[in-house]
Amino acid sequence: MHILIIGAAGMVGRKLTAGLLKTGRLAGKDIEKFTLADVIQPSGIDFKGPVETLAIDLSAPGAAVTLAAKRADVIFHLAAIVSGEAEADFDKGYRINLDGTRYLLEAIRQEGIKAPYLPRLVFTSSIGVFGAPFPEAIGDEFALTPLTSYGTQKAICELLLNDYSRKGFVDGIGIRLPTIVIRPGKPNLAASGFFSNILREPLVGQEAILPVSKDVRHWFASPRAAVGFLIHAAEIDTNRLGWRRTLSAPGLSTTVGAEIEALRRVAGEKAVKLIREVPDPKIDKIVEGWPRNFATKRAESLGFVAETSFDEIIRIHIEDELGGKIGG
Amino acid sequence: MHILIIGAAGMVGRKLTAGLLKTGRLAGKDIEKFTLADVIQPSGIDFKGPVETLAIDLSAPGAAVTLAAKRADVIFHLAAIVSGEAEADFDKGYRINLDGTRYLLEAIRQEGIKAPYLPRLVFTSSIGVFGAPFPEAIGDEFALTPLTSYGTQKAICELLLNDYSRKGFVDGIGIRLPTIVIRPGKPNLAASGFFSNILREPLVGQEAILPVSKDVRHWFASPRAAVGFLIHAAEIDTNRLGWRRTLSAPGLSTTVGAEIEALRRVAGEKAVKLIREVPDPKIDKIVEGWPRNFATKRAESLGFVAETSFDEIIRIHIEDELGGKIGG
Repeated sequence: MHILIIGAAGMVGRKLTAGLLKTGRLAGKDIEKFTLADVIQPSGIDFKGPVETLAIDLSAPGAAVTLAAKRADVIFHLAAIVSGEAEADFDKGYRINLDGTRYLLEAIRQEGIKAPYLPRLVFTSSIGVFGAPFPEAIGDEFALTPLTSYGTQKAICELLLNDYSRKGFVDGIGIRLPTIVIRPGKPNLAASGFFSNILREPLVGQEAILPVSKDVRHWFASPRAAVGFLIHAAEIDTNRLGWRRTLSAPGLSTTVGAEIEALRRVAGEKAVKLIREVPDPKIDKIVEGWPRNFATKRAESLGFVAETSFDEIIRIHIEDELGGKIGG
Repeated sequence: MHILIIGAAGMVGRKLTAGLLKTGRLAGKDIEKFTLADVIQPSGIDFKGPVETLAIDLSAPGAAVTLAAKRADVIFHLAAIVSGEAEADFDKGYRINLDGTRYLLEAIRQEGIKAPYLPRLVFTSSIGVFGAPFPEAIGDEFALTPLTSYGTQKAICELLLNDYSRKGFVDGIGIRLPTIVIRPGKPNLAASGFFSNILREPLVGQEAILPVSKDVRHWFASPRAAVGFLIHAAEIDTNRLGWRRTLSAPGLSTTVGAEIEALRRVAGEKAVKLIREVPDPKIDKIVEGWPRNFATKRAESLGFVAETSFDEIIRIHIEDELGGKIGG
């Protein structure tokens, strides 16, 4: 089994690689080879078999052809520029997030014309394909109503993935990831960053800023759950999906207030005291258009599993990122 | 007011042109100029002002730029290859139906960068963006679930139209047309052709073949209603749409059996006798995946109007195509 990860240097890509290395198997087969690609050179990994790392821009001429020619059995396509950047740079967003994915699909199809080739393609979509107004819990048949160029690009890729799969050019499956918390690393400027910041920073004794009301409700899963979704997506029988190849992943719908209560239970009052409320109406307004809750019957019936409490999400961060220790 | 019609040589394009010529006005303003474009040279028209006709392939290099440079006030974009052809020729379908539309949107955006330009763009989408399984009546918030490449291409264009409108690059509105009956002209090979054939042919004393059960239910509007949708779309205040710029047009949900009963009422038993039932399981299977009914609250609340009986649809054909006379 040869695995290609496009976007391997990103947070989810690195955790996915680590997860696959740990078991050494996927879909009941031994992993024999890794190809790791990203716009920046991915780090090497400690693996017994061959590993190829590639610094490659999927939207550049010939890049998708090069990657498809590797004829990997499973391709994880995680590469994208984020919402804020796609909104600020319209051309770049469409080039990377739409054209890049379309080139990949087309290169796989062309590879299959040369000689039979039908790889499993696991594509990461986003809850950004939905925008207000929507019901309190977004069901599996709700229209894609993006309010950002990023969400539009992901929604279009979902449609292409369906059509290329239906035509027998690829065995595609897309997963709409919830907002991932707790994101490791430094605070970043993403509008959604505070959902992670207000937990991650206090857990190491640092102050964090909360720019919205504690009543804000949102849809979450841990990095560990995200990796679980992608591996499960690579392994399930896609015939069970019909031609609707993208699923809203399960997650946890909770409020900022409940996040903070979980922090209190896991790390105590001292940690909670490090959260400073500095209301930012601009962020408030952005967050207003974001999904708050989902009804993910399809994904659940197909065996996808997420956390059921925020305490669990915090404990996963402490285990996976802090060596089991709350600092400060 | 300068009007550009792309796809002007097609059935809807010709009827739209005729409709606009009749009133000479659109959105409360006099029409001063027509630009008529299609892959085949559109016929000239009898108009007091300037008329330019262009044989141009929207997907060819530079074509969209040429058309956008006309700086029309209202652009009707009706050009597409049909479902059957898009399914048979994958590359051509994506080139014409997706890339052509994207080039047009991008050319309009670039034109606006040179000097402020925000035309109303009326785009014809299709009920082909929906595929089974779906509820008996498809509502305004139902997911786009195409089961053809044509439907996929139209769905993607809807998403692009939303995003380009949201970003202020174009003032777009899309209309998902019902199946148009009675299509004038000769029987064609489209799988949906029989819905028109079984009425149009008997009305002029010709035999027609019915390949499906009389219980088959589908979603219809007349060519006259379709032109009405497009003109209304060019005239309404698009602020009322928010960022969901495409509407399922109203229509009439009825069975083949009810079509035939209407034919009996309008044209008598003699006409009905000309319908020969020759079941075709292949067409039956295709039709199974097609929408049967819609709940078009949004379009109705915005003033779009369709026929409410099949008798009316047949009478419109007799008035508009047969000079008021039932032949035979």
